Amino acid sequence: MIIQLQQDISDAQKSVIIEKVNKLGYQTSEVTTQFAHYLIAVGKAEFDLRRIGHLTGIKDIHRVSDPYKLVSKKWRVYDTDIDLGEGVHINRSELSIIAGPCSIESPEQIDQTIAHLKANNIRLMRGGVFKPRSSPYAFRGIGLEGLKIFSEKCRAAGIKVVTEVMQVSQVEEMHDYVDIFQVGTRNAQNFNLLDELGKIDKAVMLKRGFSGTIEELLQAAEYVFSNGNEKIILCERGIRTFETAYRNTLDLNAVPILKEKSHLPVIVDPSHGVGLRNYVEPMALAAVMSGADGIIMEVHQCPEKALSDGQQTLNYHEAKTSYERLRQTYALKKSFNGV
Amino acid sequence: MIIQLQQDISDAQKSVIIEKVNKLGYQTSEVTTQFAHYLIAVGKAEFDLRRIGHLTGIKDIHRVSDPYKLVSKKWRVYDTDIDLGEGVHINRSELSIIAGPCSIESPEQIDQTIAHLKANNIRLMRGGVFKPRSSPYAFRGIGLEGLKIFSEKCRAAGIKVVTEVMQVSQVEEMHDYVDIFQVGTRNAQNFNLLDELGKIDKAVMLKRGFSGTIEELLQAAEYVFSNGNEKIILCERGIRTFETAYRNTLDLNAVPILKEKSHLPVIVDPSHGVGLRNYVEPMALAAVMSGADGIIMEVHQCPEKALSDGQQTLNYHEAKTSYERLRQTYALKKSFNGV
Amino acid sequence: MIIQLQQDISDAQKSVIIEKVNKLGYQTSEVTTQFAHYLIAVGKAEFDLRRIGHLTGIKDIHRVSDPYKLVSKKWRVYDTDIDLGEGVHINRSELSIIAGPCSIESPEQIDQTIAHLKANNIRLMRGGVFKPRSSPYAFRGIGLEGLKIFSEKCRAAGIKVVTEVMQVSQVEEMHDYVDIFQVGTRNAQNFNLLDELGKIDKAVMLKRGFSGTIEELLQAAEYVFSNGNEKIILCERGIRTFETAYRNTLDLNAVPILKEKSHLPVIVDPSHGVGLRNYVEPMALAAVMSGADGIIMEVHQCPEKALSDGQQTLNYHEAKTSYERLRQTYALKKSFNGV
Amino acid sequence: MIIQLQQDISDAQKSVIIEKVNKLGYQTSEVTTQFAHYLIAVGKAEFDLRRIGHLTGIKDIHRVSDPYKLVSKKWRVYDTDIDLGEGVHINRSELSIIAGPCSIESPEQIDQTIAHLKANNIRLMRGGVFKPRSSPYAFRGIGLEGLKIFSEKCRAAGIKVVTEVMQVSQVEEMHDYVDIFQVGTRNAQNFNLLDELGKIDKAVMLKRGFSGTIEELLQAAEYVFSNGNEKIILCERGIRTFETAYRNTLDLNAVPILKEKSHLPVIVDPSHGVGLRNYVEPMALAAVMSGADGIIMEVHQCPEKALSDGQQTLNYHEAKTSYERLRQTYALKKSFNGV
Repeated sequence: MIIQLQQDISDAQKSVIIEKVNKLGYQTSEVTTQFAHYLIAVGKAEFDLRRIGHLTGIKDIHRVSDPYKLVSKKWRVYDTDIDLGEGVHINRSELSIIAGPCSIESPEQIDQTIAHLKANNIRLMRGGVFKPRSSPYAFRGIGLEGLKIFSEKCRAAGIKVVTEVMQVSQVEEMHDYVDIFQVGTRNAQNFNLLDELGKIDKAVMLKRGFSGTIEELLQAAEYVFSNGNEKIILCERGIRTFETAYRNTLDLNAVPILKEKSHLPVIVDPSHGVGLRNYVEPMALAAVMSGADGIIMEVHQCPEKALSDGQQTLNYHEAKTSYERLRQTYALKKSFNGV
Repeated sequence: MIIQLQQDISDAQKSVIIEKVNKLGYQTSEVTTQFAHYLIAVGKAEFDLRRIGHLTGIKDIHRVSDPYKLVSKKWRVYDTDIDLGEGVHINRSELSIIAGPCSIESPEQIDQTIAHLKANNIRLMRGGVFKPRSSPYAFRGIGLEGLKIFSEKCRAAGIKVVTEVMQVSQVEEMHDYVDIFQVGTRNAQNFNLLDELGKIDKAVMLKRGFSGTIEELLQAAEYVFSNGNEKIILCERGIRTFETAYRNTLDLNAVPILKEKSHLPVIVDPSHGVGLRNYVEPMALAAVMSGADGIIMEVHQCPEKALSDGQQTLNYHEAKTSYERLRQTYALKKSFNGV
Repeated sequence: MIIQLQQDISDAQKSVIIEKVNKLGYQTSEVTTQFAHYLIAVGKAEFDLRRIGHLTGIKDIHRVSDPYKLVSKKWRVYDTDIDLGEGVHINRSELSIIAGPCSIESPEQIDQTIAHLKANNIRLMRGGVFKPRSSPYAFRGIGLEGLKIFSEKCRAAGIKVVTEVMQVSQVEEMHDYVDIFQVGTRNAQNFNLLDELGKIDKAVMLKRGFSGTIEELLQAAEYVFSNGNEKIILCERGIRTFETAYRNTLDLNAVPILKEKSHLPVIVDPSHGVGLRNYVEPMALAAVMSGADGIIMEVHQCPEKALSDGQQTLNYHEAKTSYERLRQTYALKKSFNGV
Repeated sequence: MIIQLQQDISDAQKSVIIEKVNKLGYQTSEVTTQFAHYLIAVGKAEFDLRRIGHLTGIKDIHRVSDPYKLVSKKWRVYDTDIDLGEGVHINRSELSIIAGPCSIESPEQIDQTIAHLKANNIRLMRGGVFKPRSSPYAFRGIGLEGLKIFSEKCRAAGIKVVTEVMQVSQVEEMHDYVDIFQVGTRNAQNFNLLDELGKIDKAVMLKRGFSGTIEELLQAAEYVFSNGNEKIILCERGIRTFETAYRNTLDLNAVPILKEKSHLPVIVDPSHGVGLRNYVEPMALAAVMSGADGIIMEVHQCPEKALSDGQQTLNYHEAKTSYERLRQTYALKKSFNGV
């Protein structure tokens, strides 16, 4: 049960509500986000909502039977819009394209990527500075100093920075240089990291665990929201199955389900999904037709020389064509669902 | 290695070729299909193709290193076109829509479905008369007599019959009433059935096993082709994974891969794939954008009353909208890849 | 619901029972096996069993809520014992070892294997004569003529023949030469084959599908039983997962579950399970400790030269040690569960 | 390649070696653990080891082609023995039993558990104080204060503390109260946490990710070792597959493989593995027969009232029988492999 509270509710009024709800057999958690104030009540007893609905300080009450509450579509009639400033939004009414290299490699590469993005009217750049690697002996990213340069150059160009955070202690040090904190598939259930990202006022993009269920992804989002941050983006990036013909099984089935279950925007990563360059574009187009609100793609000035993931990365020329097709596909999809 | 033989090759000429190829360390299998005559040579030694290329009776020679040979795109420059007669084709240059109920239930239902298909300009009707069921106590389909009525009504309406065959002995008895024999996911590696279907001159649609790899699907197709039947359609219909939010994980990643590896047309079944009505259309549209040459969908005059699979079946009204959107999506996809 | 009927029930008495049960809202199927006579009633209404329990001709009635009925342990108080003659049984009170090559290759090999088995006091020999192969160009077994020699030599030595049947038409032609018909993993849901094997009086060993659930395995067994054959052996042989370090994920978790859910004996195949020689013995021992009633293993006079599956096959010397350890392990396990 | 260095090597000698190895095309990482000093050299060129073997300061050199190096069995001839003090070891020559509740709930529960363990001659107690939970609204453990009581009581009783650490910042605060830091399945690729645990001198038990490969588990261990901590225990605890009849697919196939690939001790967790009480003992016994060096089990004074995981937890009476059987099984297994 989600009880939306009036913004100007007094502590005394709140206590009355909590006491009443507890007496009805529900445990309560208070949640205060950038935008609103909620009581989450978890319990099993059935009762008539009117028994509490009249209490002063309550704006609205909704039963939500899902295992996740605040990220559920059952209570919120409008979809989440994430305003990144300077006219850049991620939401369910326009197509977001996020592009860039797997790893940030050099200042020159940042410049080249920014030029490529601007030429294609893209406002969001991805690029890893802390890289999770299976082997401790592999390249682990250029780190915080690289992020500062990445950020400075993007800011100057009006481009937003999307990059992966790997641990709690990085949240603070990365904070001022990042627009969207990406949580990688291996951290999909790193609950301490999710808690921490719930305490800041920056957008968070949650990648589905490579063997995480759709419900677990939504519960991960609930961690962030219930800690106070409503700016959440869900990202499907492929799951692990028995098939070895490609890197991961990009699970587009998740897209219409996430769109129906939650009010959050849904992004798809075909680069890590199918993981082979030739199939990135068809899977990206398919993602849009399945209902994705955005695509995150790896592009590189010279994929053959990329320090990581070159085999799944498009060059600028290939990417340009794909962007156009993605936009045309999105326009057609939008025409189907009316205004 | 695939050696295409001249149609008018003499037995003596063929013997010379086989002997020579055997001497080079290759085992040979002769394959004669509706359309052509091949020698498949399997072996490991490397040699200069010119050592046999000059022999009389050889039309062309191709090395094919894939575990499947005749269905590989490595040797055939044109894509397979399956001509079902009366202007109905399944191929890579037009969108095929196959629709109909999970199970054929009654003559009235056949009439209603045919009327629905004709109103939507669809020429292929699906409908099961032999149903594979997990439990021996469940409805197993109306059988051969039902097929005869199904077939008669479709013939009268210029519509092609697509239905599942479950065992070798049915191939002959069903033969005259079927246009496309469907091999179900549970029979994906029923090699005797595949052998048998290779000996007839009817189209065969092979569903991927629910835990079959892409390579195994192509090898199943090789069974049919190598027995003499080139009229093969591949069908992705969802795989079994850990996710339980839907029926199967429709694996659209398979589509661009099958299109690249093979010259056969590729159909997608979103009804059994995602398996929930609300998600059938988005997954069908996504399938087309991933490169599918056709869609096979379950429609029913009243899905709530269907004898099987009602939860994944569209009603006629929903289906009509989906057909239109599928065609628009296909047109857009086709515009991307040029003529 | 399972209604056990008196063996001497009259048709009139049976009609009375069926009519009454139908009126209570249940559909009935009659099952007559080698040993008994049953009515299976499938329905949802709840009623007091005493409303039918008094009818003449009924021996016993049991509610069975499982999706499988006759193979469930919910109604049968004793475990199934399969008597193969000459003192060879498969049941839950002694360890069955089945050993032999993947494929029968030659008469000499049969002789060598029989000598090896007799030296180790083993009475069951496995060996494929019809081999399911992913590629149509691979060796498909020596066929029926080979089976005849295999059978003749085993009969002479007091050894029982265990071999795979692949299609309906083989059941009759193989019938006289086989003691246990094995249904392979690819045919785990070949319902026509299961139907057919239900009509004969020979033991049937059902391998779990490589992505079949435990419930599906039990439902496959229900097909055989409900067609009239109670002599069923369940076999766990590994499932398909994301792990590639071995051939299949031998799922020993299935063993205690199958033992609890069903009254049928449970055999484990570690050779196809883990699929690598070094790990066959530890997995076989583990299988026994998990509760397996038997082990089916691949042995070969010279695994390096085996026509198929050599990498997972033990030589006679390795096998001898394993048999002894299996027996010691079984004795210990049996001591745990009392008499 | 692993170059073991002399303990008393000088910096100058080390520089000579590093320079030489770099010149041969290899990148080097220095690793200093509690016990020894290594150079890990990663590269592709082939060369004669004698070209560096003569250099002063080198104790031994081994080629290790595995993607993990220091945890590989390819270079270390003896198996790892982890000495926890007071006569408690985890290694490959005795059976380790770790038992206790899922979550530490109260001081009384700790006392009861300790009494139970002592009565059964068990020296290792498990118990969670920080609990990873899918939902942010669920019980998250009693935290650090609870750990202090847990630790104090165990110390007094000569029992070692095994508990889960969830994030980097907890390592220091938990350090003095823990004997074995457990890394949970959701943190199996939390590389920052692995790095941190590599910097301390306490044992670390790594649970396999629920969809982690065997190779990824070994690479996680490599993270810990390469940061300086050799005291690593591997733990198989079940993987995620399509089967839903149990909680996880306990993958015993991993046990003999891990034992062959690595020199580290291998523990199995049947409680989280199969996840249903009735099957915990058979799977634990099977684990021992597959080669496990230890078992970690959930026991509770009253599983029906446990705050978490009650359905997979044994009561003291059941557990007592299981411990005895585990020990008998281990003795038999040990007799097989000789001294």
